[in-house]
Amino acid sequence: MKTLKGFREFYPDPVPSRDAWSFSIRQWLFDTWRNTARQYGFVEYDGAPLEPLELYTQKSGEEIVNQLYNFKDKGDRDVALRPEMTPTLAKLVSQSATQYRKPLKWFSIPQLFRYERNQKGRLREHFQLNADIIGEEDPGADAELISFLIDVLRAVGLRKGDFVIRISSRTAWQDFYQKNGGHPDRSYDFYQAIDKMERVPEEVTSQSLEGTGISIGQVRDFIGRAEPVGDLAAVVDQLTQRGLSDFITVDYRIIRGLAYYTGVVFEAFDCSGKFRAIAGGGRYDNLVNQVSGGKVSMPALGFGMGDVVLTELLKDLGRLPDTAFKPDIYFAIEDESLRPQSLAAIQWFREQGFSVVFPITATKSDRQFKHATELQSTLLVHIDPLNPGQLTFKNLKTREKTTGPREQIHSLS
Amino acid sequence: MKTLKGFREFYPDPVPSRDAWSFSIRQWLFDTWRNTARQYGFVEYDGAPLEPLELYTQKSGEEIVNQLYNFKDKGDRDVALRPEMTPTLAKLVSQSATQYRKPLKWFSIPQLFRYERNQKGRLREHFQLNADIIGEEDPGADAELISFLIDVLRAVGLRKGDFVIRISSRTAWQDFYQKNGGHPDRSYDFYQAIDKMERVPEEVTSQSLEGTGISIGQVRDFIGRAEPVGDLAAVVDQLTQRGLSDFITVDYRIIRGLAYYTGVVFEAFDCSGKFRAIAGGGRYDNLVNQVSGGKVSMPALGFGMGDVVLTELLKDLGRLPDTAFKPDIYFAIEDESLRPQSLAAIQWFREQGFSVVFPITATKSDRQFKHATELQSTLLVHIDPLNPGQLTFKNLKTREKTTGPREQIHSLS
Repeated sequence: MKTLKGFREFYPDPVPSRDAWSFSIRQWLFDTWRNTARQYGFVEYDGAPLEPLELYTQKSGEEIVNQLYNFKDKGDRDVALRPEMTPTLAKLVSQSATQYRKPLKWFSIPQLFRYERNQKGRLREHFQLNADIIGEEDPGADAELISFLIDVLRAVGLRKGDFVIRISSRTAWQDFYQKNGGHPDRSYDFYQAIDKMERVPEEVTSQSLEGTGISIGQVRDFIGRAEPVGDLAAVVDQLTQRGLSDFITVDYRIIRGLAYYTGVVFEAFDCSGKFRAIAGGGRYDNLVNQVSGGKVSMPALGFGMGDVVLTELLKDLGRLPDTAFKPDIYFAIEDESLRPQSLAAIQWFREQGFSVVFPITATKSDRQFKHATELQSTLLVHIDPLNPGQLTFKNLKTREKTTGPREQIHSLS
Repeated sequence: MKTLKGFREFYPDPVPSRDAWSFSIRQWLFDTWRNTARQYGFVEYDGAPLEPLELYTQKSGEEIVNQLYNFKDKGDRDVALRPEMTPTLAKLVSQSATQYRKPLKWFSIPQLFRYERNQKGRLREHFQLNADIIGEEDPGADAELISFLIDVLRAVGLRKGDFVIRISSRTAWQDFYQKNGGHPDRSYDFYQAIDKMERVPEEVTSQSLEGTGISIGQVRDFIGRAEPVGDLAAVVDQLTQRGLSDFITVDYRIIRGLAYYTGVVFEAFDCSGKFRAIAGGGRYDNLVNQVSGGKVSMPALGFGMGDVVLTELLKDLGRLPDTAFKPDIYFAIEDESLRPQSLAAIQWFREQGFSVVFPITATKSDRQFKHATELQSTLLVHIDPLNPGQLTFKNLKTREKTTGPREQIHSLS
């Protein structure tokens, strides 16, 4: 009775093993993402997790099929589990753009699927926060998006010195490439070489640059200058005005491998360098046009942030919060003849919004107390056996005890 | 650029057409389910949306494959998108049951997938609240589960007279079947006939009963008596003690079609009779044993409640709440020279937890005001042009206006 390799299950707390995933941590992460999105006025959407295969092949070419969970459904349609959200977003936007005020600030938390071969321990699914601003070409949108990224990372518990957003510009690289005589038909290979530069030996990069018309020395000089120009300078200015300059650095080593980026690009990293990128994104001003078959043309930018690297980083830093469920009330039933009245009281407390746990069958007093303590219940409540119209409330932290009508709860919590 | 037939997309508000689905309504529904689950001490889990095909065939037989999104993955494994959550739950529980205190009270909100042919307008995916209690044979567990179901329906806005839980007992039907000489090898056909009885003409039911050894007259007599016996009587008693008798009725027409139910069973319906069942469930004391291949044996019960019927019912009753995003603050920028200071103030408000929307580029004052009004922002805030150290706060509902430092927000909200 196995689970598929590369897929996770999310357990209630306490999770049954050290490397099992906790549902409540996942939910806390999503809630934090959603709460920060709300502060920024991003609104949420979702698409279908299963899409027509061509939605992905028309954007990324046939090679992407090797990495997809794709199949023919019973109606003989070629379909795929979504490997990324951007094509779905571009579809939704091109179908509905006239209905919304621009710019759109949309986000989503999809589960995404990639069939990765021979990658030990690599997951085949993850959840990803996708945030996009659509219909605004001004660099103020780039600053707003990166500011949101910074505040998401701070909201989950990361601080100055824990992470940095490395900001760069595809436009600056394009200018550099043209001015220095890069071959027009080799630009994609050039971006790929720069994107991989940090992860491979210098000889490999030199080799990859051969035939592009650009030398590794020129590349090194350009990266070394690190001058923000054009839109990139405006983005840095606005983030500085927001007081966020501690969280960003201009770094031309970032270029993003994908072909469709067009302007400012960025990646978020942990400062220890232990982990892969936490998030990455940038401008893709031509993609909506491309995906809509030329019907809708809107400048756009966005980022994606997976749940896996972020959770592992927080775990590594000891910053994961205690998200386990703790009831407000453990309602003890010490005398079974009082169960009917106890059930009525439990119902009343729940209707007031309190969470209540109680023993479903006759249980010894000491076991009930032990259970209440293990659950870290705030209060232990039971019907006063001497005066069944009254309840006894015991605060399990302060050990304070009071007796009174059920309404007394409101003065205790 | 199509979406697959039978799949939904969830749009930000206002949704682009009358029958488009709203993400914020979906999120409100899930939040309400989660909040009620917390009151009852149910904790959340999730499995993988893609599972080995045999997880479903071993429980339901090969015929189920016709209704599945199943395929061979690139590693030649037979896999399927989950059509229901119970097998996944039974798997998780049988792998981890020793780690948790019994009974488990677990819930999940999976998206489920069924390939349904020739069913006009029928969806091929939906979200479902699944709640289960595992490891408790006492009917107190059945009462707790049904009480949770009632409170979920009340929490989303349904009241007495809007819905009813029809409670029945597979055990009572089994006893009836045996005592009246039903043929032991036809019991599944018998349950199927009773399950369909309300939806087909009486002749069809009579025909289906042929060969079972039971006549339609005997069935009608049994249903007519509607006496709760055994565990069913205990469940009714406990729900009455909780003050919930208005929401339940004993109704033997309910039997649940699936083979695996073993005790009390129930379905929730809207009282108008316009919709399919809102929720359904019951005891399945042998299923964990069966799915775990005999390794783990635990009594269990649960229900499933889909998002589609419930949302349609609430829409029909005019009970869907206004869940559209409304910012706390629209921050107007009337003088572009004040943009840097405005950005600093916006950042500060967001760090205090407020949601802030502002114009990303230079925008005429009247358009900013219009946007703030359309968004139903609580406050319109801007830097006082006469005194740039101060902010002007305007409450868009009361029209009240005050001027002061940014900290004044705390006395306004």
